[in-house]
Amino acid sequence: MSRSNKQIIYVNTPSPAIDPSLSMGTFGLRTTSIPEHIPDDKVLVRVHYLSLDPAMRQWLTAKRSFSVGSNLRDRFKVGEWVIAYSGWQEYAILGAKEVQKVVVPEGCRPMDAMTVLGMTGLTAYFGMLHVGAVKPGDTVIVSGAAGATGSVAGQIAKIKGAKRVVGLAGSADKCEFLKNELGFDAAINYKDSDWKKQLKDVTPEYIDVFFDNVGGEILDACLARAARNARFAICGAISQYNAAQPRGPANYMMVISQRVTMKGFIVFDFAKEYPTALRDLGKWLAEGKIKRKEHIIKGGLEAAPQGLPSPKLGT
Amino acid sequence: MSRSNKQIIYVNTPSPAIDPSLSMGTFGLRTTSIPEHIPDDKVLVRVHYLSLDPAMRQWLTAKRSFSVGSNLRDRFKVGEWVIAYSGWQEYAILGAKEVQKVVVPEGCRPMDAMTVLGMTGLTAYFGMLHVGAVKPGDTVIVSGAAGATGSVAGQIAKIKGAKRVVGLAGSADKCEFLKNELGFDAAINYKDSDWKKQLKDVTPEYIDVFFDNVGGEILDACLARAARNARFAICGAISQYNAAQPRGPANYMMVISQRVTMKGFIVFDFAKEYPTALRDLGKWLAEGKIKRKEHIIKGGLEAAPQGLPSPKLGT
Repeated sequence: MSRSNKQIIYVNTPSPAIDPSLSMGTFGLRTTSIPEHIPDDKVLVRVHYLSLDPAMRQWLTAKRSFSVGSNLRDRFKVGEWVIAYSGWQEYAILGAKEVQKVVVPEGCRPMDAMTVLGMTGLTAYFGMLHVGAVKPGDTVIVSGAAGATGSVAGQIAKIKGAKRVVGLAGSADKCEFLKNELGFDAAINYKDSDWKKQLKDVTPEYIDVFFDNVGGEILDACLARAARNARFAICGAISQYNAAQPRGPANYMMVISQRVTMKGFIVFDFAKEYPTALRDLGKWLAEGKIKRKEHIIKGGLEAAPQGLPSPKLGT
Repeated sequence: MSRSNKQIIYVNTPSPAIDPSLSMGTFGLRTTSIPEHIPDDKVLVRVHYLSLDPAMRQWLTAKRSFSVGSNLRDRFKVGEWVIAYSGWQEYAILGAKEVQKVVVPEGCRPMDAMTVLGMTGLTAYFGMLHVGAVKPGDTVIVSGAAGATGSVAGQIAKIKGAKRVVGLAGSADKCEFLKNELGFDAAINYKDSDWKKQLKDVTPEYIDVFFDNVGGEILDACLARAARNARFAICGAISQYNAAQPRGPANYMMVISQRVTMKGFIVFDFAKEYPTALRDLGKWLAEGKIKRKEHIIKGGLEAAPQGLPSPKLGT
């Protein structure tokens, strides 16, 4: 008996906004069937959760999922959780090298592999520690601070002794969450008309580390407040992803006058150091030093595009 | 008998273009007199040469000069050459700490202290070696390549084994000079209508190091050609100095996708390493591995503003 497999397929490059419908604009929906016979060297993976991060706007193909059944029974047990770039579908047939077993550190949960112990948490870790090189006493700004990466980045800065950790987010609720739940020293709603003044007020010693997920006007405002030898870890530019004509940082001459290092990075470059990072992150998570933030969209596979950033996000 | 001292004084911030006249727009001219008695702890310095570099557009105050007479006779001999931030005047009275004796390495000349063995040569040295971290096999682009800093930066890249050193300059003559006199592998006149295509053609392996003096459209074009892990040493932004609304690099998202490090620097930050740098630069100069490029404007002190970049330079 053949089982069906619904798939969301990628049809056209956004131009520039994503069409969140499934009507063959950006995406389409189709139903295929799973073969009766799974090749001996493949694993049949049932997709339980898809993780959607802003960076995927730039890939538009890869995502992660969890597993169910296999013919590689010596290496994968039916029902084990794995993480993989499965595609947006209900089932994926993947080679052994394409799936990674989820190891759950003590005090953590399997779902953590999609957040703090996954790509977003690792991105926060390497961006804040290796690129931003945060040190005790620093003033740290995180944009997109209420997001999966930003929220962890800010918490890591606090763990490492930053003097002031300030989050930029897009609503008063998110700002309250950052201050009250995650221990940020301050949070600024960049939709407030006076957000630049607020930024100035909370950075009396200027900005040592900027962990940027947003770009655009926010990057410019932070350059204007850069401290001597500041490190700007450029993680993303969500405000620009849908822009036909991206906006460069007009204040980039501060890069010269304040000797700013602006460095882009991608988490995969640090793959060799994942084990160390996961050990630290798992420990902090178990100790409650890092708090989880999850946003789960229900409604099955068809709801997946709802998880995409709206065209207005971050602008 | 009191001697007169003509001085060019800085009157107003350019708004945004420099007024090169001496009619109290940006600058004014005044005549003072030199005191009969030079305090015991001061040196009277006669200004023979003023050095004008693009970066001075950002300072508009400091410049260098050479010496003539003194009351610190144990430490300074009359007629010795010194280098100092003298101001734009015929004579300056300076403390012992404000003047630096010119040491001329074997095979070099006193004037070299204003070019290769001065701030511009040191800027090229630290920018190419410490910030750009050039290594054998690299493709290196230098903008403002025919200038005092750029011309040395490109030559240092060749000395260090770069595979391709390409200069960007603003005239066909300058391009010929770079290729024929200084040994650049290629040179592009950014006033050619197809300069971006030329840039693409000469960077088949993309750009590892960009030493940027210009900014604006040139920085954008080089970001578009950045290699993975490229280092962009941001030395200056001459195209933007006179812009009321500076233009940021619109392609800055390449910083993320190619993991570019864009780092601003200022030569003074490397002061502790000047002796090492001067030893290397003096050796290369004496060996003929670095060729000098001097542009001397005659006409006395009043001609000084002619040395300033024209508002159209670099755009």
